Amino acid sequence: MDKKTAVFRKEHFNAAHRLFVPAWDDQKNKEVFGKCSNPNFHGHNYELEVKVTGVPDPQTGFVIDLKLLSDIIKEYVLEIFDHKNLNLDTTHFKNLNPTAENIVRIIYDILRKRIEPKLDLQVRLYETERNFVEYPA
Amino acid sequence: MDKKTAVFRKEHFNAAHRLFVPAWDDQKNKEVFGKCSNPNFHGHNYELEVKVTGVPDPQTGFVIDLKLLSDIIKEYVLEIFDHKNLNLDTTHFKNLNPTAENIVRIIYDILRKRIEPKLDLQVRLYETERNFVEYPA
Amino acid sequence: MDKKTAVFRKEHFNAAHRLFVPAWDDQKNKEVFGKCSNPNFHGHNYELEVKVTGVPDPQTGFVIDLKLLSDIIKEYVLEIFDHKNLNLDTTHFKNLNPTAENIVRIIYDILRKRIEPKLDLQVRLYETERNFVEYPA
Amino acid sequence: MDKKTAVFRKEHFNAAHRLFVPAWDDQKNKEVFGKCSNPNFHGHNYELEVKVTGVPDPQTGFVIDLKLLSDIIKEYVLEIFDHKNLNLDTTHFKNLNPTAENIVRIIYDILRKRIEPKLDLQVRLYETERNFVEYPA
Amino acid sequence: MDKKTAVFRKEHFNAAHRLFVPAWDDQKNKEVFGKCSNPNFHGHNYELEVKVTGVPDPQTGFVIDLKLLSDIIKEYVLEIFDHKNLNLDTTHFKNLNPTAENIVRIIYDILRKRIEPKLDLQVRLYETERNFVEYPA
Amino acid sequence: MDKKTAVFRKEHFNAAHRLFVPAWDDQKNKEVFGKCSNPNFHGHNYELEVKVTGVPDPQTGFVIDLKLLSDIIKEYVLEIFDHKNLNLDTTHFKNLNPTAENIVRIIYDILRKRIEPKLDLQVRLYETERNFVEYPA
Repeated sequence: MDKKTAVFRKEHFNAAHRLFVPAWDDQKNKEVFGKCSNPNFHGHNYELEVKVTGVPDPQTGFVIDLKLLSDIIKEYVLEIFDHKNLNLDTTHFKNLNPTAENIVRIIYDILRKRIEPKLDLQVRLYETERNFVEYPA
Repeated sequence: MDKKTAVFRKEHFNAAHRLFVPAWDDQKNKEVFGKCSNPNFHGHNYELEVKVTGVPDPQTGFVIDLKLLSDIIKEYVLEIFDHKNLNLDTTHFKNLNPTAENIVRIIYDILRKRIEPKLDLQVRLYETERNFVEYPA
Repeated sequence: MDKKTAVFRKEHFNAAHRLFVPAWDDQKNKEVFGKCSNPNFHGHNYELEVKVTGVPDPQTGFVIDLKLLSDIIKEYVLEIFDHKNLNLDTTHFKNLNPTAENIVRIIYDILRKRIEPKLDLQVRLYETERNFVEYPA
Repeated sequence: MDKKTAVFRKEHFNAAHRLFVPAWDDQKNKEVFGKCSNPNFHGHNYELEVKVTGVPDPQTGFVIDLKLLSDIIKEYVLEIFDHKNLNLDTTHFKNLNPTAENIVRIIYDILRKRIEPKLDLQVRLYETERNFVEYPA
Repeated sequence: MDKKTAVFRKEHFNAAHRLFVPAWDDQKNKEVFGKCSNPNFHGHNYELEVKVTGVPDPQTGFVIDLKLLSDIIKEYVLEIFDHKNLNLDTTHFKNLNPTAENIVRIIYDILRKRIEPKLDLQVRLYETERNFVEYPA
Repeated sequence: MDKKTAVFRKEHFNAAHRLFVPAWDDQKNKEVFGKCSNPNFHGHNYELEVKVTGVPDPQTGFVIDLKLLSDIIKEYVLEIFDHKNLNLDTTHFKNLNPTAENIVRIIYDILRKRIEPKLDLQVRLYETERNFVEYPA
């Protein structure tokens, strides 16, 4: 069994955000981001798919215990993003526009430190059913 | 063809909100509504299912043209709720807690005035895949 | 156990159709039905949900064997509609506009004769994920 | 606000079962239930939708707190059915065939005692995406 | 941020088609393609997922504005395929069998000319929930 | 058309299993696998996605006839796993823990012998909507 296997765990969180580049004024933000830059925010049900790739342990048959992976996601990602305002309640997006592309990279960076280095990691984030992103591609 | 037929149209909108009873202080709101009362808001992808019931027109075979129904929902509901903060950007929830139960009733009241009286109306609103409401029951 | 229980079986079929009232010319059909009246047809993956309601048999615990219900739907509905042109390949829509409202009533009429009279019947038909109908309402 | 509103909470559990009427021998069970009566069991991801109907509280805007409803389902239903063998690990199906019809009625009876009498209750259970039941109908 | 990010946009269209190799007669087409070669056509709800990969703009945080990507898909793909008969109403399938494999490659070729060359492109097309294709693999 | 195209076919099966390492006693199995090691088993609706990649035949436009692929999956995978107890009714998991990682690799090995060597193969298996695996990664 030398080929690698990928395992996926899906979690979700609900958050408010607005697309906003702090270096620009409200007018320019509105021109570029339209209704997504509403000053009072809007929000999403974010669906998060975390993919971990490696060789399964020969005895347990696990790449990683999905219960453990779920706990890591809950403790390090959902705890800081769920039922929060991404622009106001987190440190990550004080100076970074909370686009799906930026959110998924931040989540990857958080999880990368918590998953064993020998395991590969990729994160997919659904902002809506029709708009989603993946990092690294 | 005397029995009635129901037709359904599904639309969606993304909005921020917080559960908040204006008559209570932040502390009491937090005790009752927990993280759903986060002062900086959170948000959802709301899925809206509108059900219209009547006898199909014998020539067109339509209860109501679903293109027309979609246009009505977009003009009178999505226009005021999509990419908005329900607590701050709408008049409806200035003094009304934006629970799913209250949102669905407000949407029903808006649409009831725009759909012919001979047609029955019911609205279902998904706040998440696992939490949803229907009015009237 | 005197209260009734409903059981549902979901099947699907793929068909071509055009919205077309034979009493009208192509111009009027296009005015009323728009691109849905394209003379060369378009098509859908129709999802069909059949609901049968009754008192479960005290020994088997079945309202109706869902395998039997599935077989009835396949033999009497899918056999005549799946991979067909509803306007050209069926007798039902020679003089009847194949709207979702009319299709669902025709399917109900077909199945009503094949399901025991003591059992209630209702049919839901999805033309797309966002447009669907139910008969009787 | 005199009309009633319905709220829904969706939960899930994974269980093994076999269709089996204790009064019959294995041969007759196999004739009637086919592969669903495999003596070594098979299993499902059961999706459970609980519908509670009433008048929302004028202050909170809740029919019932969905967090509370979720906790009730977890404590009284999932605790006894999740990751269990319905035939062997529960008392409910010692002498009752665990068809979807019987499972949904048992779940209704369990929850009915835990939900305030002034609120109406209905339960829907998906055995697969294509086979599901509802009680009371 | 040197690693690439992928963004996805999902759109859909409804079309009629028949599997048909013009070089063969109807009999041979029927032998090879079965009911999918019905001379009067059948149809599908096609779900289209377009994946664009690149390095997000450091200021906007966008790989590509998904609103722009959606507009490109609508103008150059949906405009020619939605509510059409792929065999009769398009130039692409006059001499090419409209299998999912061929449709997805045609859509890729159309979009490739409209997306900046520095961005990678991949297209997935669902013919049904259970049959889908991806190009390039 | 020198680039490869991938085609996917989705099937499903329902099975019982328990996570269980035969070299360990029940106590150790319970410590490691928790409720997933329930001695009387639990079960799942497994969703199986088979991806076959190659160059479409220039005349038919098929990488592989999806009807044929579906038949291969049914004959060689569903026939031995559907409505079965993976631990007791199959030879594959007598001495192998039926984790999703191990099941997906066994299915890959079975199908690899039945799909032409010039075509690439990958298998994805959903144990639940939130837990799934892919092989080879």
